[in-house]
Amino acid sequence: MFENDNPAFGASLQPFMGIPSFMRLPVSRDLADVDVAILGVPYDCATSFRSGTRFGPRKIREMSLLLYGYNPTLSIKPTDKLKIVDYGDVSIIPTSIMHTMDKITTCAGEIIDQGSTLVTLGGDHSIVLPLLRAHAKKFGPLSVIHFDAHLDTSESEFEFIPYSHGTAFHYAIQEGLIRKGAYYQVGIRGPVGGENDYLDACELGARTITIHEIMDKGIKSILDEIKVGVHGPLYVSLDIDVADPAFAPGTGTPEIGGLTSYQLLSFIRGLQGLDLIGCDLVEVSPLYDHSEITSIFAANLVFEYLSLLALKKINGKI
Amino acid sequence: MFENDNPAFGASLQPFMGIPSFMRLPVSRDLADVDVAILGVPYDCATSFRSGTRFGPRKIREMSLLLYGYNPTLSIKPTDKLKIVDYGDVSIIPTSIMHTMDKITTCAGEIIDQGSTLVTLGGDHSIVLPLLRAHAKKFGPLSVIHFDAHLDTSESEFEFIPYSHGTAFHYAIQEGLIRKGAYYQVGIRGPVGGENDYLDACELGARTITIHEIMDKGIKSILDEIKVGVHGPLYVSLDIDVADPAFAPGTGTPEIGGLTSYQLLSFIRGLQGLDLIGCDLVEVSPLYDHSEITSIFAANLVFEYLSLLALKKINGKI
Amino acid sequence: MFENDNPAFGASLQPFMGIPSFMRLPVSRDLADVDVAILGVPYDCATSFRSGTRFGPRKIREMSLLLYGYNPTLSIKPTDKLKIVDYGDVSIIPTSIMHTMDKITTCAGEIIDQGSTLVTLGGDHSIVLPLLRAHAKKFGPLSVIHFDAHLDTSESEFEFIPYSHGTAFHYAIQEGLIRKGAYYQVGIRGPVGGENDYLDACELGARTITIHEIMDKGIKSILDEIKVGVHGPLYVSLDIDVADPAFAPGTGTPEIGGLTSYQLLSFIRGLQGLDLIGCDLVEVSPLYDHSEITSIFAANLVFEYLSLLALKKINGKI
Amino acid sequence: MFENDNPAFGASLQPFMGIPSFMRLPVSRDLADVDVAILGVPYDCATSFRSGTRFGPRKIREMSLLLYGYNPTLSIKPTDKLKIVDYGDVSIIPTSIMHTMDKITTCAGEIIDQGSTLVTLGGDHSIVLPLLRAHAKKFGPLSVIHFDAHLDTSESEFEFIPYSHGTAFHYAIQEGLIRKGAYYQVGIRGPVGGENDYLDACELGARTITIHEIMDKGIKSILDEIKVGVHGPLYVSLDIDVADPAFAPGTGTPEIGGLTSYQLLSFIRGLQGLDLIGCDLVEVSPLYDHSEITSIFAANLVFEYLSLLALKKINGKI
Amino acid sequence: MFENDNPAFGASLQPFMGIPSFMRLPVSRDLADVDVAILGVPYDCATSFRSGTRFGPRKIREMSLLLYGYNPTLSIKPTDKLKIVDYGDVSIIPTSIMHTMDKITTCAGEIIDQGSTLVTLGGDHSIVLPLLRAHAKKFGPLSVIHFDAHLDTSESEFEFIPYSHGTAFHYAIQEGLIRKGAYYQVGIRGPVGGENDYLDACELGARTITIHEIMDKGIKSILDEIKVGVHGPLYVSLDIDVADPAFAPGTGTPEIGGLTSYQLLSFIRGLQGLDLIGCDLVEVSPLYDHSEITSIFAANLVFEYLSLLALKKINGKI
Amino acid sequence: MFENDNPAFGASLQPFMGIPSFMRLPVSRDLADVDVAILGVPYDCATSFRSGTRFGPRKIREMSLLLYGYNPTLSIKPTDKLKIVDYGDVSIIPTSIMHTMDKITTCAGEIIDQGSTLVTLGGDHSIVLPLLRAHAKKFGPLSVIHFDAHLDTSESEFEFIPYSHGTAFHYAIQEGLIRKGAYYQVGIRGPVGGENDYLDACELGARTITIHEIMDKGIKSILDEIKVGVHGPLYVSLDIDVADPAFAPGTGTPEIGGLTSYQLLSFIRGLQGLDLIGCDLVEVSPLYDHSEITSIFAANLVFEYLSLLALKKINGKI
Repeated sequence: MFENDNPAFGASLQPFMGIPSFMRLPVSRDLADVDVAILGVPYDCATSFRSGTRFGPRKIREMSLLLYGYNPTLSIKPTDKLKIVDYGDVSIIPTSIMHTMDKITTCAGEIIDQGSTLVTLGGDHSIVLPLLRAHAKKFGPLSVIHFDAHLDTSESEFEFIPYSHGTAFHYAIQEGLIRKGAYYQVGIRGPVGGENDYLDACELGARTITIHEIMDKGIKSILDEIKVGVHGPLYVSLDIDVADPAFAPGTGTPEIGGLTSYQLLSFIRGLQGLDLIGCDLVEVSPLYDHSEITSIFAANLVFEYLSLLALKKINGKI
Repeated sequence: MFENDNPAFGASLQPFMGIPSFMRLPVSRDLADVDVAILGVPYDCATSFRSGTRFGPRKIREMSLLLYGYNPTLSIKPTDKLKIVDYGDVSIIPTSIMHTMDKITTCAGEIIDQGSTLVTLGGDHSIVLPLLRAHAKKFGPLSVIHFDAHLDTSESEFEFIPYSHGTAFHYAIQEGLIRKGAYYQVGIRGPVGGENDYLDACELGARTITIHEIMDKGIKSILDEIKVGVHGPLYVSLDIDVADPAFAPGTGTPEIGGLTSYQLLSFIRGLQGLDLIGCDLVEVSPLYDHSEITSIFAANLVFEYLSLLALKKINGKI
Repeated sequence: MFENDNPAFGASLQPFMGIPSFMRLPVSRDLADVDVAILGVPYDCATSFRSGTRFGPRKIREMSLLLYGYNPTLSIKPTDKLKIVDYGDVSIIPTSIMHTMDKITTCAGEIIDQGSTLVTLGGDHSIVLPLLRAHAKKFGPLSVIHFDAHLDTSESEFEFIPYSHGTAFHYAIQEGLIRKGAYYQVGIRGPVGGENDYLDACELGARTITIHEIMDKGIKSILDEIKVGVHGPLYVSLDIDVADPAFAPGTGTPEIGGLTSYQLLSFIRGLQGLDLIGCDLVEVSPLYDHSEITSIFAANLVFEYLSLLALKKINGKI
Repeated sequence: MFENDNPAFGASLQPFMGIPSFMRLPVSRDLADVDVAILGVPYDCATSFRSGTRFGPRKIREMSLLLYGYNPTLSIKPTDKLKIVDYGDVSIIPTSIMHTMDKITTCAGEIIDQGSTLVTLGGDHSIVLPLLRAHAKKFGPLSVIHFDAHLDTSESEFEFIPYSHGTAFHYAIQEGLIRKGAYYQVGIRGPVGGENDYLDACELGARTITIHEIMDKGIKSILDEIKVGVHGPLYVSLDIDVADPAFAPGTGTPEIGGLTSYQLLSFIRGLQGLDLIGCDLVEVSPLYDHSEITSIFAANLVFEYLSLLALKKINGKI
Repeated sequence: MFENDNPAFGASLQPFMGIPSFMRLPVSRDLADVDVAILGVPYDCATSFRSGTRFGPRKIREMSLLLYGYNPTLSIKPTDKLKIVDYGDVSIIPTSIMHTMDKITTCAGEIIDQGSTLVTLGGDHSIVLPLLRAHAKKFGPLSVIHFDAHLDTSESEFEFIPYSHGTAFHYAIQEGLIRKGAYYQVGIRGPVGGENDYLDACELGARTITIHEIMDKGIKSILDEIKVGVHGPLYVSLDIDVADPAFAPGTGTPEIGGLTSYQLLSFIRGLQGLDLIGCDLVEVSPLYDHSEITSIFAANLVFEYLSLLALKKINGKI
Repeated sequence: MFENDNPAFGASLQPFMGIPSFMRLPVSRDLADVDVAILGVPYDCATSFRSGTRFGPRKIREMSLLLYGYNPTLSIKPTDKLKIVDYGDVSIIPTSIMHTMDKITTCAGEIIDQGSTLVTLGGDHSIVLPLLRAHAKKFGPLSVIHFDAHLDTSESEFEFIPYSHGTAFHYAIQEGLIRKGAYYQVGIRGPVGGENDYLDACELGARTITIHEIMDKGIKSILDEIKVGVHGPLYVSLDIDVADPAFAPGTGTPEIGGLTSYQLLSFIRGLQGLDLIGCDLVEVSPLYDHSEITSIFAANLVFEYLSLLALKKINGKI
């Protein structure tokens, strides 16, 4: 097992003690032999309503101390199989999304180029565009599963600047970062701007899976469809608001009528066997998470993803 | 489309900006050609436990700014089909339910008499009695679907004054405001005062549909029964505590074991095609809604109702 | 009916008024003819993460004022059939779990020895060990149904002291307090320390029923299995974190992917007919329960248990 | 010392344990030999902004458990010198201020007539009018010191009903309940309706002492003036919003620029030697008191008042 | 008096009712004959720590409903003397401070050019630079009194973009927007980056008045100095964190050891007689203002400023 | 300057980014050449009312990121003059104060023996006894300045175990850890158990300086007295509840009528020149600190103490 050998972090402490790196993993920018790097991107200035996701990475790290390490559902202890580090945060520039995006692309690229799989903690959903740029640069056009209540394929939200937390996938597709026919939007629901929004997503090549489809067909059936469609390197982008606000109140634009935590966990676990090459978990806003249940949920989702990466490595693919 | 032409309201602003009328609709008491009037009734002094619904109308208005306008499930943009105004609030008198009820009846009557459909934001559930009085005066005895965890058919709660947030339907039936055999209580559950409570409701003519029936038979089956039973003008009274406290924590008397937001949305959408002539949404208490998810839920339920009204108008009935 | 005859408590008051003993029952240590004693154990120092359950008994008492008395699902008014008192709290010593455990065992023993059934409000889950000691002393080895997200069968959590909120059942089994083959852990899920944790529980004799089994087989099927397995006096230990954090955010170590409140209520009601001789409800932390929904949930679960005790008495068994 | 001899209340427990009557005093309506009765009046429906004072009495009781009993500044242990009981709450009717006022007058009168000094926990400030009626009935026109940020001498606030939390002293003076020239308003500040508001108070006979006077002259000087003016039985009405919102955030209509807690304590202690015959402490709203500091402040102010009563008794006057 | 003649706003309602424009003033962009325009600038992306000031303007508007209109300290009712409108919000672009600043300058310029005095509600303190640009364009170099815990004269805070909430006055001086020798920083305290920070401010021409000077010399003495130094049009920029966090917890970078609310009120009132031509009140973050006392404080400070403008108009200067 | 050279910590980041060690100092247990070690002691089980100080060290670390480094009042940048590390937390055992105290004494001793000055972040005030044991072992009997609202010289609080957060100084004196005539209790106030409490403290040798003395004589005068009395190595124990709850709401047993933050800062700065050899800052409970102002206050107080240590080193004494 690859452990934090700095005693001041308190590897053996109970969750309320010690300095919170993700799962008490080493805080390091040395990626030699590192399988997975956890990266925080505390940017929250592209949100259209409630902000606060700038504190997402820090709070998810703190709540990750509750993860005792072994995943009994998937029968794996990720930190036994993977060398993981907490890479710290990108130094974002809240006053400028353009500069922030460049810094994210650069930082993510440096990690990916050294052979580590990148797991990113947001921040708002605008950060997925530079993350996709960095991944597509190495892996080519990506298959993408995008969990969300919202389409995020609008052309613009604010004036002057096209990029926001609701437009990232529009530009990702336009830039050719996503493989044709391999882009799945899962959990979509709620009011949209107009009748063309779904059509626009469709014309961009998205397969929009609404909450109604999930509730009607069941998760297994949806997973079956997705597994047929995705090819090659698969990136997972997980907006916590795909879950119902009851399960994830701490987010910027809650959308009622969503998934339960059990459903979302089952969905993620169902991705086992796919060529997972990176993911992000975004839109956790601790300011609206008075019981910390959203951050705990997020930490668990990252843990499930790490478990899948560990299973992938066992099978010789990482 | 009928829009707010006052630029100071900021029709094109994102949800965190501008002055919050309901969905940024015009704030007006001029009802010429108005299809629907949104009315706030910030009365919260008839509650038996936690108060705070006096801030319900204001908070639901603020959260309504999140509603982007087009309903993809029902394929309609209500503000395109309906002329809607935010009529402001009734000037209630918190020290006297009797005077408050008179003011509500009068104000609601003025709106209804001018031909607008009234959609009311509470306030506690005591306000439904004067609302039913105003509607029954115009429409005659009403079919009523009453979503709630509680029966609200008690005879009295406090001394001296018969009216409270738990007695409104008792008196509505006694006063003949509700059509015989067309009163449905949906979602009922939780401890009651005694073994006669359900019997009393039944003897008053209520069809009490408990949460157990809904969970056992499914929403579609319940809707089928209701659609057979209701006739003529149908009033919908929606106490947010019909939802489980996980989905609607911000309310005065939460009752565990309730509906999910997805279930409640489905129920409301299932009312399509009925002769909807008015509704209220009550018991949202922002003081207990730290993540604002109850107010967001409430705003969405009103939006679904407006969508149904828009569909009704398309079909020539409004 | 057995009522609080002290007018200063306000037996007829609405829930926001008066001094909160449990359900406004008499506050008394006189157990003559008393069927059930409610006991608070405000100890919260054996928790591995968030504390605050020291305020659990007080808050559950306050929220119990919402329980109007008659259980329409089980058709019983427990306070009509049972003489119940609020026994107050054990005087715990937060600085020492050893002394605290002794005081709990002693206090619980005094109640049980006088023939009253004990219903305990926690406090963290470490308190179940002294409670089991007291019950086993009178009843012999107990059948136990243990609702929880966590196994609680670890050998140790902190240094030096073996007892904590995650080890109670390990020592209960070691001490022979639990009948062989009659220990059910219900709702287990989430990351554990290692691959042996489930195996260890199994070797101790636990029947571990994971959330996956419940979701797959349904509650009725699980209940059927349990009813076959339990024999003789049955103790129920209910850790509120068996419910999903959406339904029970106010707890120390929330674990996502759990039961809904409707599911848990159904489970408890399904215990009807078994030889119920005591229970505890633990791990409610009001500090993380901003909308009080966890405390309300807890009060209702106790109410359901009291209803079962009343039904048992009618059938001549109490 | 006069103690609570019911062991279930837990007289020797630390503050986080046990059932919270005021300072763990006996809960009783038997006033034989009782010097002081603590009475809760959980009425909050006469407020013009934020409500929630219905939970004031209960929360102040809970926080009173922090009061260890001996007052080192005044060198007295009130519970040693006075027989005090917690009388419970008036059964108020939130839907009607008129009926509520009658019930308060009646209940207060019953206590006063039996010779106990009444100390009332509000509730909003409208409750002072019926309290003054009850006291004036026994004692004749009263000297009154009224601590407040607001004048509370308006003629009306809402339509139809003259009584509210901002009008009580207007009607108290009109009804002759207050001795001419012996009514002091202390701490007044903030915007008022119009230029006549201060003049009206003056014409009613009030001596309005603004915050500016207190800051400029000092508390001792103000006390000297007051001591010259008051005669005979002195009633103290203490609206917690006389303190600055920093010190008392948990109130309905906070007014900036007020007293510190040290200043207010000093002021109350300075009343030593006057003929104190009753007091109320109102406008504590726990819903806005997230750190409980307002309730703790309130409990301490009551404790200081009880200390003054104990000193008065020693000097043979109670 | 100039009133809101739209009855739907509810001019006569109590503070908890109705739609909250600032002090229920007309919501309008028609500035004919308008003396003062209230403008919201909900931009919060230039903050170095906690954000949330995007909700500042909306919350301050809501709390302004508590301002009853007449200022008894200054003996003036501002809305009687001044025609004031609520101009709504600037449509800011959170993803780009550069575009946002341009929009602020343009919007402020349009208001000022029509002859209205501009009173701005922030938003974070970066917005003062475009506001000063707009004012200096009309009035020439301005005298400025800048209340703050922080110097705000740094050269840069984040990479690439020089502008942030800590650099505005550096660039304002560099651009010649501030009159030489007429820039006062009041209330400065707390740790800074290095020993040159104060020197840099001094070299830029600032007169830095630390909290120590205020505490030692008193407010009157400081005011005397300022009144000697300022000449011509005077702009006031008020960062709420000049107050101690006890009085203004709801802000992004609280700095302990600051002014009380009484002190700050006295300071503002002491500006009477100066040539006040505009002001802003910034850095109120409702997300950290659980009791709303910071927003209430802010609304009162704006009210005092409006009172000064009314006095100025009476004296023929507006 | 001695900096954190691990780039993953983000030395140049703004406060909302990166992993929070104290002031972003190196996390290390290597004390070679280290002047000062910051140590967390997250023990909160000896409290008599509200707990939660277990999260104190973590939250104070996070808030310390706001400290920009240079102290303009004392004209020193402590991290320039001192080599400081964040030593992490003691692995406490919440179930046993006896074992916890031993672990604290051992850990503190290891740090002190290596020549580093220890600055401890609590945790509740019971931790000061083992800290004094460790310091007295090296330095002999200590002069002690103890800031607190409470005497903390009681003999016992709970049964069986003499140690609690209210008894530490009783036993410290009994054990001879404190120099005779050199123990100052500063800021004492509030109700106590009985008339002997102050006398007992006096007989133990304490100089009890009440809040009244401070308010009457002024801080400078008190400091003068203290400076005459203390000799040799001086330990400072700072219970945050010495400040008024308005300034420090986030604590377990708030006591009204206390110091302002400006007063407390002044007091600490006044200790310049004394032989400071260690300190602790205790009783910060983030659970009750909704605006984080108590944690920010605490971080600043530690920063002032570090500034004093830096000044001491410059003068050749460290």
